[in-house]
Formats: sequence, structure tokens, C-alpha cells
Amino acid sequence: MAASAPIAVTLGEPAGVAPEIVAAAWRRRETEKLPPFFWIGAPEALRAHGVDVPTAEIATPEAAIDAFADALPVLARPLGGPVTPGRPQAATASAVIAAIEEAVALLRSGRAAAMVTAPIQKSALHAAGLEGPGHTEFLARLAGRPVEDAVMMLAVPGLRVVPLTVHVPLAQVPALITAERLRHVARILVHALARDFAVARPRIAVAGLNPHAGEAGAIGEEETRILIPAIASLRTEGLDIRGPLAADTLFHADARTGYDAALCMYHDQALIPLKTIDFFRGVNITLGLPFVRTSPDHGTALDIAGSGRARPDSLIAAIRTAAEMAARRCVHDG
Amino acid sequence: MAASAPIAVTLGEPAGVAPEIVAAAWRRRETEKLPPFFWIGAPEALRAHGVDVPTAEIATPEAAIDAFADALPVLARPLGGPVTPGRPQAATASAVIAAIEEAVALLRSGRAAAMVTAPIQKSALHAAGLEGPGHTEFLARLAGRPVEDAVMMLAVPGLRVVPLTVHVPLAQVPALITAERLRHVARILVHALARDFAVARPRIAVAGLNPHAGEAGAIGEEETRILIPAIASLRTEGLDIRGPLAADTLFHADARTGYDAALCMYHDQALIPLKTIDFFRGVNITLGLPFVRTSPDHGTALDIAGSGRARPDSLIAAIRTAAEMAARRCVHDG
Repeated sequence: MAASAPIAVTLGEPAGVAPEIVAAAWRRRETEKLPPFFWIGAPEALRAHGVDVPTAEIATPEAAIDAFADALPVLARPLGGPVTPGRPQAATASAVIAAIEEAVALLRSGRAAAMVTAPIQKSALHAAGLEGPGHTEFLARLAGRPVEDAVMMLAVPGLRVVPLTVHVPLAQVPALITAERLRHVARILVHALARDFAVARPRIAVAGLNPHAGEAGAIGEEETRILIPAIASLRTEGLDIRGPLAADTLFHADARTGYDAALCMYHDQALIPLKTIDFFRGVNITLGLPFVRTSPDHGTALDIAGSGRARPDSLIAAIRTAAEMAARRCVHDG
Repeated sequence: MAASAPIAVTLGEPAGVAPEIVAAAWRRRETEKLPPFFWIGAPEALRAHGVDVPTAEIATPEAAIDAFADALPVLARPLGGPVTPGRPQAATASAVIAAIEEAVALLRSGRAAAMVTAPIQKSALHAAGLEGPGHTEFLARLAGRPVEDAVMMLAVPGLRVVPLTVHVPLAQVPALITAERLRHVARILVHALARDFAVARPRIAVAGLNPHAGEAGAIGEEETRILIPAIASLRTEGLDIRGPLAADTLFHADARTGYDAALCMYHDQALIPLKTIDFFRGVNITLGLPFVRTSPDHGTALDIAGSGRARPDSLIAAIRTAAEMAARRCVHDG
């Protein structure tokens, strides 16, 4: 049931590139062998961006299956106001949030196999009631899970990374690295790799916080004080996890064959190698939720919205990854 | 004179991979089109590693030019003790340091065009009088320059990076990022790119310290407080420098076409993209000295010393880079 249900793509910020990349992904449905998806969106948002794509206004998610071959299926919802590419409006903020909530409801009732969230403009949504710094935290709340269970993983072909801290100033990172957090995230990661990515025995590599992973305490003490004991404790639980390893030598092609995911200490340590290796196909995946959620790893790109220049590669990869994950688990496991 | 003088390669740690990679680089002199170089070393160190290479014990650097075609030219010096691969000895520490000092003297008298330092084991040298954390600081002192003038740049084909801070704990990095340091390093970098790398008008990209380069102050304040004003001030001096830019989107192939060097805030921010892109050919270059100095970007690799497994790619790139730099400036400019 779950695997044959369509994939829900959320509205995203209608003034950003979301309408364009959703349409562009649908156009490539055959060459990219994409599974049926529908957009919880609005045909007028497409027109506002000058996108000329056949749309099918569907009444139910199930109708997307048949409609998908000939038109972009749209579960049309009121936007609340006009769309101007590049200029997010407060009037449409509620529709952006409602689309996320509706996707979650469809997932929980088994009417969508997975959700792919189009990029949102966080600053435009806080006034409309979006809680937390972004999608991930909002979804944890909708799922009824503690926010610390929602773990962000990013993936490109050949590399998966999980940053232990994300959108915090670098100066705050060292204090946020705790053994408890590392153990919690490592367990969620290993569980997800086994269940959703068909990695029978996930191998985790942990990057050090400091240059050369601290050189045995010569360059910083977080490795000896926190990381080494936490990794040892996880190994006693049976996890195939090693480190801390020097981050600079962890991401070249040979090194990447040695693990299934790299657990990194902070945003740039994880994102620099990922985006250096493959800038256009990164997928953001939320682990630890009772449903499958992925997204492109880019933002709303307001500066090019409406120009037709936005590439759908990341959204396409997000849709495909979501479908693969959904096929590996049933919708309800939470 | 300078361009036709040979290149001096220092002894390096004789218990590390230095003897093996020097011999391996010489063996590839024709396929790699390497300029004549000589090793300030010891034939017995080669034998200790089981390296069977023809050597020519030369009495003067100049003799290396003729000898190079048929044998590895060695300016033989006493080691002070036996060599055991993988086990640095205190007895040889003085010889390691003396080779660096001799190379500097040969450079200053114009008898060597450039120096390439083989990897040293710093911990084994401190007892013998090596000051500072490594080669770079020691060379600044030998050159009679303030240590802050010796700036480390790392290069692979397609990317040059300069880390503003190097071997310090990550927790100390934010406090070390100052406008004064950024301006000082940027000026040395631009001068070096123009003089030694034939970049007529060097374009410098500055990476932010925080995720997304701080998002206009939303994620950390070092960008708005320090980096933006410092970059503006450098632009008024005529430097083609921009930033701070989000570090995660700075290093993919398209992005790299936009600058000649990236000025990074800390070790892993600079070294992760470099070693991810090209793990084996990284060259460490010291800017701001009155002579040309390069080195491989790897260490002594004690764990594989004597096994013949060490690759000479990085040393070969270091020799070639040194020769190119030397050809672009005269030996004496300091």
C-alpha cells in the first residue's frame, strides 16, 4: 500500500524557486524514472513564475497515480494572496505551513508514501506561527516526537553525512558536543541506515572536532574527553563505529569506501565535503521520524526565482530517495 | 642563475617515509619532467628502508645538475645514529634540523633555487632545539622574518587555500580571527600570487566562520563585526577580495572558477575541500619568506615507513611547484 501511494511534495515558498523546480522535475519524470508525485500547491503560483506546464487538479492523492503521466498533479489549495517571484508575502505564509501539515496528515493515514518538502523562507513564516528554526523541528512536533529525535542527514551519491550540530555559531559548537548527543544520534543513524537504506550492518565514521582529530590531546581535548569514550561505549552496544578521525582526510574517494555515513561535529564539516563532491544532487533527509521526509538541500533562491534558471536536480534526487526509503518500510511504524 | 640552480630537498625524518618518497620521485624524474634536485641526506637512510636506487654523492649543489640524469644526487651528511623505519631516534634529530638550516643557507647564497622540505616528526625534534610548532615557524626564524609573515598556503590543481588559523583547537578559533590578521594574510597572499604564481590580478574569496557565513548576523556575529569591515578595507586598498561567503558552497567546480585562492578561517575548512578534491597531490607552500619553500602536505607516515607503499605524488608536486615559483622570482628578494 505504502509503496504504491504517491509522493506528496509540499508547496514551499511560492515566491521562491519551488514552483519552477516542481514543474521541471515533473517534466523529467520519464528520463529520471520518477515515481508518481503530486504537489500540494496552486496552479496560479506556476503561472506567476511564467511556468507553462500541464497541470491536473486532483481531488484526492490517489488520483495522482493516473494523472501523473500527462500532467503535474496538483492538490490545489488557496494561497491567501498573490505571488511575486523573489518577494515572499505574509499573506501566503499560512498556506506554506498548511501544506506541510496536510502532507503529514496524508502520510499518517497512508495516502501518501513519503513527503518531499520544497524550500521555505523561514523568516517569512515565523510570524505565521512556524515554530523552531525550520522544517525539521516543525516536523518533529507534528510527528509527536521530541525534537532531538529528528536528525538531519545529507546525502549525495557516494557520501552520507550527519552534522551533530547545525545552524549554530561556530563558537558555540564545542559546548554542544556531548557524549549523550553523539550516542543518541549514532543510534538513530544506524537504525535508519539499516531500515531505510538497506545497509545491513552500517559502518559509521566519526570526525574529530579539532584539526587532526586533536592529535591525542595536543590540539584540543574534546576528542579524548568526549568522543573517544562515547565511541567506545557505542561499540560495546555492537555498533560498527570508529573515530574520531581527522576530518580533512575523511572524504576523498578512497576514504569514503570505508564507511556508510560520516558523523560530523558541525555544519560546514559535513556540508563542505558533500557540496564539493556533488553540488547539485544533495538530498536532505530527516531521520528519526515515523514517516519518510526528504527535501532538496538548497534554499528558496529568491535571487533567481522566476528566471527559469533553477535546476531541479536536487528535488529530483529528493523525490527518488523518498521513494526508495518508502519502499523499504511501511508508512506506519511510529 | 636561480632558475638554473638545482632544488634542495631536505633530509626529513629518516625513520619516516622521506627516504622512500625522495627515491621514488627521482625514479619518476623523466615521466614527471622534474627539474634537477638533490637530497641533503644520507645513502644509509635509503638502505635502511630497503630502497635500491643509484645515488651520486655530490660535493656541491652544482654537481647535482649533471648527476641527476643517472642517479639521485645526495649531499651526504652524517645522521648521528642508525635508522629504524617507523621509529624516530633522538640521535638523528640534530641532522634533521641541520639539513633545514643548510638548505636555507644554500638558498640565501643562490646555490639552490628553492627548498622542498621532507616531512619531519615534530615531537622528535623539540628536544634537539626545534622551536615553534613546525617547519613554517622555524623557517621564518631562519629567514629573519616575524613568524606572522610566514603564511601557509595549500594547493592542488584547481584549488589554493590559506587557513587563517592552523593547528589550534576549534574552540580557540573564533578569538583568533581578527581584522588585523585577515588584512595581513590577504596582502601577503595577493603579493605571492602575483609574483610567484603569475596571477596578474589575484581574486581572493573569503570564507565565513559560521554556517551560511552567519546569515547576516543570525548565526554568529564574527562576519558582521570583523570580516565584512576588514574585507571592505582591503578593497579600498585595491585588492580584488570578496566575502565572507558560505563555506559549504565555495568549493565545487563551478564556484572554484571565481577565485584564485580561498582564504579560510580554520584548518579543516581549508583542508577538507582540498584533500577531498585531490588527496594525493597537495602541496604546502610557505608564502612571505624571502626564498621559495614547498613541502608535501602529508606527514612522516611512520606506520608505513619501510614498506614501499608511500606514494611520492605529493613530493613530486611540491618539487614541481617549487621549480615553477623559483623560475618566477630571483632567489634574493628579502
